Parts: sequence; structure tokens; C-alpha cells
Amino acid sequence: MSETTELAARAAKLDAVDELAAVRARFVLDEAVYLDGNSLGALPAAVPGRMEDVVRRQWGELRIRSWDESGWWTAPERIGDRIAPLVGAAPGQIVVGDSTSVNVFKALVGAVRLARLDGDGRDEILFDATTFPTDGYIAESAARMTGCTPRPLEPAEVPGALSGRTAAVLLNHVDYRTGRLHDLPALTAAVHAVGAPVVWDLCHSAGALPVGLDEHGVDLAVGCTYKYLNGGPGSPAYLYVRAGLQDRFDSPLPGWNSHAEPFGMRSAYEPAPGALRGRVGTPDILSMLALEAALDVWDGVTVEAVRAKSLALTDFFLECVRAYVPAGRVESLTPVAHAERGSQVALRCPPAPGLAGAGGAPVAGDVMKRLIEQGVVGDFRYPDVLRFGFTPLYVGFGDVERAARVLAETLAG
Amino acid sequence: MSETTELAARAAKLDAVDELAAVRARFVLDEAVYLDGNSLGALPAAVPGRMEDVVRRQWGELRIRSWDESGWWTAPERIGDRIAPLVGAAPGQIVVGDSTSVNVFKALVGAVRLARLDGDGRDEILFDATTFPTDGYIAESAARMTGCTPRPLEPAEVPGALSGRTAAVLLNHVDYRTGRLHDLPALTAAVHAVGAPVVWDLCHSAGALPVGLDEHGVDLAVGCTYKYLNGGPGSPAYLYVRAGLQDRFDSPLPGWNSHAEPFGMRSAYEPAPGALRGRVGTPDILSMLALEAALDVWDGVTVEAVRAKSLALTDFFLECVRAYVPAGRVESLTPVAHAERGSQVALRCPPAPGLAGAGGAPVAGDVMKRLIEQGVVGDFRYPDVLRFGFTPLYVGFGDVERAARVLAETLAG
Repeated sequence: MSETTELAARAAKLDAVDELAAVRARFVLDEAVYLDGNSLGALPAAVPGRMEDVVRRQWGELRIRSWDESGWWTAPERIGDRIAPLVGAAPGQIVVGDSTSVNVFKALVGAVRLARLDGDGRDEILFDATTFPTDGYIAESAARMTGCTPRPLEPAEVPGALSGRTAAVLLNHVDYRTGRLHDLPALTAAVHAVGAPVVWDLCHSAGALPVGLDEHGVDLAVGCTYKYLNGGPGSPAYLYVRAGLQDRFDSPLPGWNSHAEPFGMRSAYEPAPGALRGRVGTPDILSMLALEAALDVWDGVTVEAVRAKSLALTDFFLECVRAYVPAGRVESLTPVAHAERGSQVALRCPPAPGLAGAGGAPVAGDVMKRLIEQGVVGDFRYPDVLRFGFTPLYVGFGDVERAARVLAETLAG
Repeated sequence: MSETTELAARAAKLDAVDELAAVRARFVLDEAVYLDGNSLGALPAAVPGRMEDVVRRQWGELRIRSWDESGWWTAPERIGDRIAPLVGAAPGQIVVGDSTSVNVFKALVGAVRLARLDGDGRDEILFDATTFPTDGYIAESAARMTGCTPRPLEPAEVPGALSGRTAAVLLNHVDYRTGRLHDLPALTAAVHAVGAPVVWDLCHSAGALPVGLDEHGVDLAVGCTYKYLNGGPGSPAYLYVRAGLQDRFDSPLPGWNSHAEPFGMRSAYEPAPGALRGRVGTPDILSMLALEAALDVWDGVTVEAVRAKSLALTDFFLECVRAYVPAGRVESLTPVAHAERGSQVALRCPPAPGLAGAGGAPVAGDVMKRLIEQGVVGDFRYPDVLRFGFTPLYVGFGDVERAARVLAETLAG
């Protein structure tokens, strides 16, 4: 039996005993191997019908009455409570709305203000220099607007840089590029040891692995909903504020939706109690209710089962790549240790004979284009990274074997 | 001929010669008189089909490819250019995205920074004390974060309060409560005379009357799209930055979407040229593309025609109310002069015999509830205001006569 046949046979066996295999039917998918759910999750089958009802009946017929009768007004906190169990949070701590960038701003400025409740001595914002860029840009802005110094650092350098001057720390749970999973419990404890609050960005972990926000005492967290939560393109992000901090959370974006009495139309701002304090303006209902429908795919699914399958999928992918792809053509940037791995595999793909990028384009970009033409959809991250995301809700082991095989064939020229 | 018969006959004649009458067919409407389009615009008939395509094909089939192939990535500026002619702006100055509150924050902090390019002496933010509350809350936050003093004022007091200390002025074009239209050209000129920039909130004017942003040299403007622009519940707001200021516009929310090279994933922020600089995070595509479809109702419609009909509608409503409603039962808060009137009529409705609000509820709230039960949909604003919005694209003169008649009958008990 050839290596290819052997791995394909093993994939079939793994798929046959996969307890999440049936969940795939909750999505609209085709023959392609979709390994880009870490960028845009696939369409849950329940969404189109729900959206039609939201548009035609809730908006078209009930119109303004839907703010009450269709539950539009309470959607941000109601949907936040649907996300809560997926990130290990008790109800009442998450609101949905705005983009991730805007929520990073709320969380980080809010964190600095919390840190300064006992005095103004804290004046440094530490953040992950390897992070998705928007977090760094917003951290710089938050620092500028709170009189702090922004300090970009490698995550490994953070513990050594913490001090009594630390006002807030912004970290990514999983690195968007390499797929490295950072040690949330240990880093949170280290930040707390110097008396500062920590903000975690969960964009690349929520829905893919257990987060344990409450368990580990995280102060604030943000995340998007269009990756492993399948909320649709640009679906609203969310903000978590730990219950014990909510009455002191002081948002830099105090919109009318976070007022204690929004329809009182009062000129003096008085923040609402609880997670609602993280709301700002009128919520984008169409995008938000698509997300709500999308969250139905989680019925009966545990994050622990998702994590177990995710690790099995990425292990198997790395094994197939090693078996199929000639040595030296790609190099995995994703850690081998399970404790350090998210739900994606990033392969560095340097220039090689016969693979010169067309018109000076990066080689990896060209390779990804050819993979997509053959029905294996991942994405390319500048300058030389092939990124493959594994969504255990709809990716199977047969998909994984096929992706590695097509990659090997493509690299062979 | 009774007064009722006479006014109803006149309404029929006005409807017969209304050049915008046919536009009503571009909306999904029923027998109700919908006078709440200043809160949530009715559903344009083109939207449900477009949304189905966006969800099923663009997201469901093309998935991640739609960021390029379906024009998702460029939607914020493309749709901004669709709004531009409605507010008197040349292309390339408006981006759509985020809520109005978030855009007020961007605009106001950006305005203060523009004002300080020649030095830090300017330290006051003036804003309309009668404004929709969120503008005031955000103005207070922007002041706090830029070291300014927030000065809430009646709009009439603004010219007298301007000085060399003025860092920025935030004004509403039309008051959300009374429907009063403020003098944008004169107030803009007054602010410019002390060398400060002005931010206009167009929520209650855009799509209802000519704004003339370019003509009057407005610096920055924001507006929502779910009122007279019919974009749907919580559809994204927009930000206008005058072309001549764009290269100096310094946003407090510098997300990756406003980077000069967003997919370069660079750690150093470098703002994009032009209106794109107002973008922040990933745009909420479903809500945004519903808005794009909704803007089709403007094909062949001029804002000037809309304004002419709007004034005729509100004139006629005030005339019918005077004729039908016993003297003293309601009082119009909306200015009589056309130059001071937006596209709504606000009627103060104080307590009266036989009209005590149920269970201590405000009388006006109870009256509005009864109107809605009879198919006349306006809204109630605390504590005693009945608010009727007139969207010339789908409200006719017969609707107006009926609304006044039902109001009179309801107040008669």
C-alpha cells in the first residue's frame, strides 16, 4: 500500500468515527476543501431563511415595532450570552457590536482607566508586537489618548517587561500568522501580579479551543465573530468585561445605547449597569441577527470536542505534509506542541526552482492561487506564508489528506 | 362641503400631481400611514432579493473570494460615493461604516487635532445641548481625551461663544425632537471665522433636504443611514471629511482598514490617502450591502424635489391638524418658517381631561399607542412629544390628511 493510499485510508477511518462529522450538514458547503474558516467561516444553513424573515417580516412588515417585538433592542447582550459559553464566560459579561478594532479601543482605554483608579502612576501599555496589525495601531492610539507610552514586545518578553508602571497589556490568544497559541492563564497571572489589567484578543481562538475567561480571571477580552463563529462577512465583534469590573468600566465611547435609561434622552450620561455598558450606538441588526442564527450550529457541540478534533486535524495535516511534500519546500511556522497550537497551520513557502512568482508576485501567493483553482482554499499572508485554518465543525480528515496531496502536487510543478 | 371633505379632496388632487408618487412602489408598504421613516425607513423592494444573493451566493458559494470578486472590500467608499450626491458632496469624501456615535468620535477628535495643527491653544469643544444625547456623550468623551472643556450650548448661543479657544464645534442639522432645521451655511461660516472646524450631524436631514456640504465648506460630517436613506435597522453610518483636510485628518481609531497598505500587515501605521482614512475595522458587509441596494430608490430622484414635497407635506399636515384638532390639545414645536423646518412635525401633547396616561404613563405615549393601533405610525419622545416624520419618497397627501384626522378623533376620546 503506497503512502498516499495508506493516509487516505486512515482519513476515511478517522472520519467514520468523528463525533462531529454530522455537524457539517449544518453548513452550506460544496466539493471544495475550505480551509479558510479562520478568515471567513462558511455559511450556516439556517442563516438564509432567518435573514429572509428579518428583512421581509421584521423590517418590511413590523418596521419600527421590531425594536421591541422582534427583540432587536436586546440583541447585543442576548447574542453575547450565546457566545459566552464558547469562551468560558458566565452570562451577563459580553455584548456584541462594533468591529474588533473599535472594541480593542474600548477595552484598552477602559483597562488603563481601571489601572489608574488608585492613582495615575501607571503609564505604559504593553502589547504584542507580532499581533494582527490593527491591535497595535489601536494600542498606539489608546496610549496617545491616555498619556501612556506604547511598548510593543514579543509575547515572550512580556513577563520581564511588567512593572508598577504597567497600565494595561493587550495580548493575542492565537497569533494570526503562525497559529501559535499563547499561555493565557500564565500571562494573565503575570499581569495581575503587577496589579494591571489584561485585554485578550480572541479572534483566532474563540470557537476553536477553550478560552476559560472566567476561570483564569481575565479582565477584558474582545473577538470577532466571522471566523470560527461563522457570523458572516464583517459580522459584529464582541466585548467581554469581567462582572467584578463592570461597575468601574469607564468606556471611551459612551453612546446612547450604554446609557442607564437610553430612551430618557437625558443630556447627562449615566452608564448602564453590567455588560450593557460596553454598547455604543444603534446595533447593526442585519449583521447581528445573521450571527445569532449562525450560532445555532453549536447546539449540542462542546468546545472541548471541537478542540480535540482540531488538534487531531492539524496533527494529521502536518503528518500528511511531511509524507507528501519533498523536504525543504515548506516549513511549518506552527508549533508542534499542542499547548502552543491554535487551529491553523502556517507553512512558510520560500521561492524554489519552477515556482517563481508570476510578475514578481510572491511565490507563496502564486501557490495559494493554484491551490484555490484546484479546490483547496486557504489563504496567503505576506510575504511567504500559506495559511490553512481547520474548522472542526465542517472540515474532515479526508479534506485534510486531499489538501496536503494537492499542495504536494502543486509544489512538484 | 365639510372641512374634512374639503381637505380630503385637496389631498387627492395633490397626490394626483405629485411627481414623486410613483416612487412609493419602490418600497414594501401596507395600508398603514407610516410616519416613522425618520426613525426607521421602510423596506425598499430591491433589498430582500439583493440580501438573498449576498447571503446565498456571495457568502455561501464564493465565500472568502467575495472580498474581491463581490466588491466587499471597497464597499465603504463605493457606497459613500452613492450617498455623496444626496448631501452635496463630490466623490471621494465619504466612507460608510461603524455607528453614528463612533463616527462622531472620529470626527470630533479629528477636528480638535486639525484645529491644533498650528498650536495647542484651542481647548474648548462646543456642542448643541439640545442634540440627540449620544452626540453630547461622545463630545464629553472627546473633550476629556483631548484635554478640552466641553461646552454644551443652545445652538443660538453658539456664535456668541466662539473664540480663539474653540477647538471644534459639533452641531445637528435638524433637531431630532422638534424638527428644527439649523442654519448650516451661517453657522459654518461663523465657526470658520474663528479658525475652528465644524462637525455636522446629518442624521435627520440627509435624504430629506439639500445639505450642500461642499458648497458651504463643511469640514466634517456624520450621519446615519437608517432614517431617510432607508438602509435598514442599524445600517452603518458614514463619515465625510472634506477633500482639502483629508491628508491632515488624524483619526483616533486607526484600524487596519484605514492603512495605506492593509494587506501589507505592517506594524507601523501609515494612513491611507483620501476618505479611506476614516475606515476602521472590517466592514459589516450584510448591513452595508442592504444599504447599497436601498440607495437604488434614489435613481432619477433629486433631493430638491424631495425637499419641495417634504415642505408641502408638513405644511399640509399642520393645516389639517389646525382644522381637525380642537385648539389647545396639541402645540407644534416645529418651526413654521420653511428655512427652519426639517421633514418632521413634533406636536407637544400635554395631559387633558379623558386622556390621563394609563398607569401613570405619559399621555403622549398613550396617544401614540392608540394612533399606531389605528394604523397611523409615528413615535413618542419623552416626556410629551408626538413625532411624525414625512418621507416624501413614500408618504402622500392622503396619508397626511388621514393621520391628522385619526389624531383628532383619538384626542376627542
